[in-house]
Amino acid sequence: MSENPGTSLRPPLHPVPAPPDPRPGRRELPDTDLYPIEPFRLVETRFTPSRIPQTETLFALSNGYMGIRGAFEEATPVYRPGCYLNGFYETWPIVYGEEAYGYAKNGQTAVAVPDASIIRLFIDDEPMRLDYVHLLEFERILDQRSATLTREVLFETHDGRRIGMRSIRMVSLEHRHMALFRYEITALDAHASLGISSELSFHRRGRPRVKDDPRVGPQFAENALVPGARDTEGSRVIRDYETKRSGLRMACGIDHYVETVNDTDLRPEIDDGTARVMIAVDASPGVPIRIDKYAGYHYSAEAPADDLRFRVRATLDTGLHEGFDQIREAQRRSVNSFWRAADVEVEGDDEVQHGLRFNLFQVMQAASRAEGRGIPAKGLTGEGYEGHCFWDADVYVTPVLIYTQPHLARNLLRFRYNMLEEARERARELGHAGVLFPWRTIDGHEASAHWAAGTAQYHINADIVYALRKYTQVTGDTDFMFRYGAEILVETARLWVDLGFFSDRHGGQFAINKVTGPDEYTTVVENNAFTNLMAKENLLYAAQVIDWLREEHPEEYRVLARRTGFDVGEVDEWVEAGHKMYVPYDERAGVHLQDDDFLQLEPWDFAGTPPDKYPLLLHYHPLTIYRHQVIKQADVVMAVFLLGHHFSIEEKRRVFDYYDPLTTMDSSLSACVQSIVANEVGHHDKADEYFWDNLVVDLADSAGNVKDGAHLAAAAGSWMAMVYGYAGMQDFDARLRFSPRLNERWKRLKFPLLLRDRRLVVDIEQEQTSYTVEYGGKLPISHDGEPLVVTPGEVITRPNRRVVGDDEESS
Amino acid sequence: MSENPGTSLRPPLHPVPAPPDPRPGRRELPDTDLYPIEPFRLVETRFTPSRIPQTETLFALSNGYMGIRGAFEEATPVYRPGCYLNGFYETWPIVYGEEAYGYAKNGQTAVAVPDASIIRLFIDDEPMRLDYVHLLEFERILDQRSATLTREVLFETHDGRRIGMRSIRMVSLEHRHMALFRYEITALDAHASLGISSELSFHRRGRPRVKDDPRVGPQFAENALVPGARDTEGSRVIRDYETKRSGLRMACGIDHYVETVNDTDLRPEIDDGTARVMIAVDASPGVPIRIDKYAGYHYSAEAPADDLRFRVRATLDTGLHEGFDQIREAQRRSVNSFWRAADVEVEGDDEVQHGLRFNLFQVMQAASRAEGRGIPAKGLTGEGYEGHCFWDADVYVTPVLIYTQPHLARNLLRFRYNMLEEARERARELGHAGVLFPWRTIDGHEASAHWAAGTAQYHINADIVYALRKYTQVTGDTDFMFRYGAEILVETARLWVDLGFFSDRHGGQFAINKVTGPDEYTTVVENNAFTNLMAKENLLYAAQVIDWLREEHPEEYRVLARRTGFDVGEVDEWVEAGHKMYVPYDERAGVHLQDDDFLQLEPWDFAGTPPDKYPLLLHYHPLTIYRHQVIKQADVVMAVFLLGHHFSIEEKRRVFDYYDPLTTMDSSLSACVQSIVANEVGHHDKADEYFWDNLVVDLADSAGNVKDGAHLAAAAGSWMAMVYGYAGMQDFDARLRFSPRLNERWKRLKFPLLLRDRRLVVDIEQEQTSYTVEYGGKLPISHDGEPLVVTPGEVITRPNRRVVGDDEESS
Repeated sequence: MSENPGTSLRPPLHPVPAPPDPRPGRRELPDTDLYPIEPFRLVETRFTPSRIPQTETLFALSNGYMGIRGAFEEATPVYRPGCYLNGFYETWPIVYGEEAYGYAKNGQTAVAVPDASIIRLFIDDEPMRLDYVHLLEFERILDQRSATLTREVLFETHDGRRIGMRSIRMVSLEHRHMALFRYEITALDAHASLGISSELSFHRRGRPRVKDDPRVGPQFAENALVPGARDTEGSRVIRDYETKRSGLRMACGIDHYVETVNDTDLRPEIDDGTARVMIAVDASPGVPIRIDKYAGYHYSAEAPADDLRFRVRATLDTGLHEGFDQIREAQRRSVNSFWRAADVEVEGDDEVQHGLRFNLFQVMQAASRAEGRGIPAKGLTGEGYEGHCFWDADVYVTPVLIYTQPHLARNLLRFRYNMLEEARERARELGHAGVLFPWRTIDGHEASAHWAAGTAQYHINADIVYALRKYTQVTGDTDFMFRYGAEILVETARLWVDLGFFSDRHGGQFAINKVTGPDEYTTVVENNAFTNLMAKENLLYAAQVIDWLREEHPEEYRVLARRTGFDVGEVDEWVEAGHKMYVPYDERAGVHLQDDDFLQLEPWDFAGTPPDKYPLLLHYHPLTIYRHQVIKQADVVMAVFLLGHHFSIEEKRRVFDYYDPLTTMDSSLSACVQSIVANEVGHHDKADEYFWDNLVVDLADSAGNVKDGAHLAAAAGSWMAMVYGYAGMQDFDARLRFSPRLNERWKRLKFPLLLRDRRLVVDIEQEQTSYTVEYGGKLPISHDGEPLVVTPGEVITRPNRRVVGDDEESS
Repeated sequence: MSENPGTSLRPPLHPVPAPPDPRPGRRELPDTDLYPIEPFRLVETRFTPSRIPQTETLFALSNGYMGIRGAFEEATPVYRPGCYLNGFYETWPIVYGEEAYGYAKNGQTAVAVPDASIIRLFIDDEPMRLDYVHLLEFERILDQRSATLTREVLFETHDGRRIGMRSIRMVSLEHRHMALFRYEITALDAHASLGISSELSFHRRGRPRVKDDPRVGPQFAENALVPGARDTEGSRVIRDYETKRSGLRMACGIDHYVETVNDTDLRPEIDDGTARVMIAVDASPGVPIRIDKYAGYHYSAEAPADDLRFRVRATLDTGLHEGFDQIREAQRRSVNSFWRAADVEVEGDDEVQHGLRFNLFQVMQAASRAEGRGIPAKGLTGEGYEGHCFWDADVYVTPVLIYTQPHLARNLLRFRYNMLEEARERARELGHAGVLFPWRTIDGHEASAHWAAGTAQYHINADIVYALRKYTQVTGDTDFMFRYGAEILVETARLWVDLGFFSDRHGGQFAINKVTGPDEYTTVVENNAFTNLMAKENLLYAAQVIDWLREEHPEEYRVLARRTGFDVGEVDEWVEAGHKMYVPYDERAGVHLQDDDFLQLEPWDFAGTPPDKYPLLLHYHPLTIYRHQVIKQADVVMAVFLLGHHFSIEEKRRVFDYYDPLTTMDSSLSACVQSIVANEVGHHDKADEYFWDNLVVDLADSAGNVKDGAHLAAAAGSWMAMVYGYAGMQDFDARLRFSPRLNERWKRLKFPLLLRDRRLVVDIEQEQTSYTVEYGGKLPISHDGEPLVVTPGEVITRPNRRVVGDDEESS
């Protein structure tokens, strides 16, 4: 949460009362007159100051390398505008009330860089503000097919002159370091003396930061960055900065192309916090002015500042050379290719289609050009969670990319591979073998100040392996496994055998104590089922890959053995630990236990908990929460989703039925998984309800914190809820299996999947499903248990036979 | 630890390797030539700069209200000198890396006040330092029969003049707010121009504080206090200060009486950090100068500064009026009366006698005039633990006082009663009924920044009730129970029934989850045996007292019911919860479990842990420690000591045998308890070894942190180890039972006990024990199982029949 960069307790999904209180069903999207339901567009039809915090997030643009919040060009009124570069951060020493060995030493916080989206307008030297002038027309459009944000404004000055403005902005998908802004203005009725201050500036923050917190004082306001050199030349200004502690340098610059027959004068100006080109225009009535503004951003830990400024010059030159229109055309082509690969079409439910497209667009924006960086929990749309990456990216976002844009999934896995050295160091510091990936990080070092819900979440290791395994199985990318994947497997497996032990108390099974699972409403427990099951997968998959390498790729095997100091005897340990992995199960309740002690906890008094006490974490001490059977987010339910092949449908149903009423959904990571499992076990009403909850977490601001950024995991989760949930996809081995069922409002659900160079299109209607392979070779799949081989060009159609679970249950 | 005021992980007792490594037996006291073994005196025979950090603690003087570290008068060379007032502290906002609901908000740190012990000497304007001059003779004596610290120094200046100095200081036991200093100096051979700067100053700290920690920056150096008004008049200076945040005001002052036939000139001087009276002396050869310096200290949260200055004037007037010699005489009488009530005589072992007296003297110094304040973990001898009070006072120190100076025990219980309102607030904040006493505090508010080892130690409630019960049983002070005790009982009992629940999983027994017991090497566990057993005592004792009140003191009962909103039905809940209290027990191992999961933890690799890895807390992440069967300090063993009546001797032996090898003794609270239980179960070698470890923790600096202050709990623990351990006293009901056994080196162990206005003297020899009641009525006791009634004036002697356990065991 942006007020306190240190808070890791995840924000709530929605403050509704938890079960057994009756949950409201599908809620409508709010204010559809203000934000009408449109395919591929988010439109704001009126200037609405009260929504500025939310719309800065919803109208944010990003290409995964840089992100610009959807603030007004005038830079006021604003909530918390900002421009962010993925992986660009400042670090600070974490102060603990009480220190102990092995605590994470340094915090990391993404810091805003100068914002090129600011173009302030002065009329007769009076600054124009949307909330001061008399607005006649206003519209903002986030076009998800062109990845542009357009604003149209018509207003009247206090002395009665009408002025028309139009701006278009984009963060280029083709040119990773470039953002572009077109700004058109026309004095409609009368002559006007206009000053246009096209800036590259730090924002003066809209509200004060938390007091009494030494980390968020001046060092994280505008002076987090130390100014370096400045170049100005005509319509161009370029400058560089460096951080005080993290050792990063960045350069940024803007240049302009002005087209008008009005008289204009152009003058660059620069000081520590602001760079601007001031364009004075003597505007004749009806004569438009158009300014195309190009911005470039580069940063590096190694490159000298002058080289970074040089790169910015090159970016600006490219922009001016290609021109706004050509780059906009390329932008449209880029986005189109994303939609071809990833669009999920829903017929018969415009709201769902609207929400789904918005969410997929967020995934595209966060991932496209991340290249070597991770996907923060909020993408680059806000300052929530300080720009940290969690398991969200590995378990929620990567699977979507694997099936739609596998090269982006590969990039994310490379990001994890690249932090192997830091993870090795961290394991060593904690006395472990192998690697321990950071629970929250920007640069690969553990940045969690709350170890019970941070460091203790060892499952991060297995989450990354889960993504790696899915990537490899779906893409068949053995090269990646040779170069990077196998090393991750060896090192993560080493951690697990070191962490646990064969426990006499569990009949010699392999136990893992004092870990925290996904549910942060219990921490530091014995044998968290999710962790143990995921660790088992990790161990056995590592062993399997090593065996395969040794037998089929002896040269790669030798390289790996050299690189990791690997000894073949280790595999036996992994296999033994994996096969003997202890998973707590309660015979009496017939369910897998979240951990050894979960059933010993006191039941939570849901009936006595008023709605305003949710999310619990804001109203109860951790000890009170830990002491009760109450869950923040899917944990065992998450395990039966991710590792569905280890559970029968009856087991899954018992798990869902047991844990769902205990789950508060105080985390936005929960609803999509609950929806998927509810779908599978036949609780369709619940599936629909959770699907909707998850779908609109950003658009309806149901968690109340969209102002801090979009919920990337939930965004990706809406794809998962469609594909794994409604289409009933299971992909635990090389063969895809489907068991589709549509919500009764929907006429059609259609989406493509890319796997091993084949594109499969799944087209589900109420009664039947059609499968097509658009290109590539034959593809064996199954539909409702029937094996099929889909041949390119051929359409295979089968009736949907999945039964309606709840009815079945209740009969 | 004073470097980091926030550290709650308790300091280690000694860095020896843990079992099963062979433990060294009794170690000698170090450097007995430098610090000879003497009854009632700690003598330093040579100037030893390397020991300054330790001797500042060992030679500290205190009366429980104020404490002055044993630094040299010259204020250099010093380690961390200081003067402290019990309960005088500054507060600061605790900064958490990650915040959550209910965390303690403000830290508290005892802050040094201006030190009146500073008397600097200038010879021809050159400051005299012990480490610069040519020292001919040096001796310091802490006399435990007069509670004075004397220093004798003979030195030669660089130009060959010999000067003799003698100083005596005391912190008055009679005049709580007064400290006194006598300073005598004689130029022996030649004329000398002396400047004597008698100060009341903040020390310039001897070494830098930890960097990067906003709490220990300037606000806790000399400018923690804001100077107020100043009065100077002749040989007197008085001033006042106030803290910046905690709202406390203090005033202090000094006055002088100078006696000499030399020419002298006296001049007061004052600035923000220093007040001094400068005494210039034209010293003739062989003509002595004697300065008697009186210091007064007062503080308050309410009184205005001028009133505090007035009180200081009154204290100084009293001092000057009575004079140094008369006050010294009163001091001697005070200390004598303490020794009459509390001395433990050991014949045949001078080292033990030496150590024991030093420890008892520390208890006396910490408790005598605390009056309304607590006993911090370090008394007033250093800055360790920031001057916080823990359960140490209730469970270790109070029992000693109950049997020797019951009015001081009563004061400590009043201190707890006085924080009932803060404890009520804290319980409410955490959603609990009743009260939750703070784990660490100065002013009654929870000041622990690490809740897992702080707030989660709910046993603090029962620890206080343990002390209350013992006090009431031993003294028969029903008045205290009426006024204060019963309310504590009602409110603590309410907490317990609210905290736990009747658990289906434990057959309907009462379970208490997510608490931390005394052993901080596991935290936040299910059903900590110690906690549950102590809670049970608390509940049942509360019920018993309520029943007694209702039946025998209906008026007091009505007052209590009104004051607490008490409902008679509550008692039934307490009784039911108490009787049904679940205590984890393992049939297989035949021992009570430290908690539900303790046996599920992986064994610690003691054999593979080198000595330099102790204490573990400085070398392993908490998760690693928590994950293993490794114990910091007595936990179940503590329970079988405090609640010995609930365990058979065989159970105690199994408990000791199981847990002792797992216990690292990384806490100084552990050894005395291990010694007592080892004695009881017949492991006499171990009992002797732990007794010695505990005895010399300060004198031998075996934990390496005496520099930060004396270990008060261990000091009191050496009395407990004698009385409960060697004399084999059991006092679980109104009747004392003894089962004495002496260490084979000892000829005699003799101590008095005060109970219900009788003084019982227990005189143990190798073969027999004699019991005498010195005053008061008849006293029924038992000796080795034989009931006896001791009548005043009569000596009852019985042979010791307790068998030697280890021999018995091994045969």
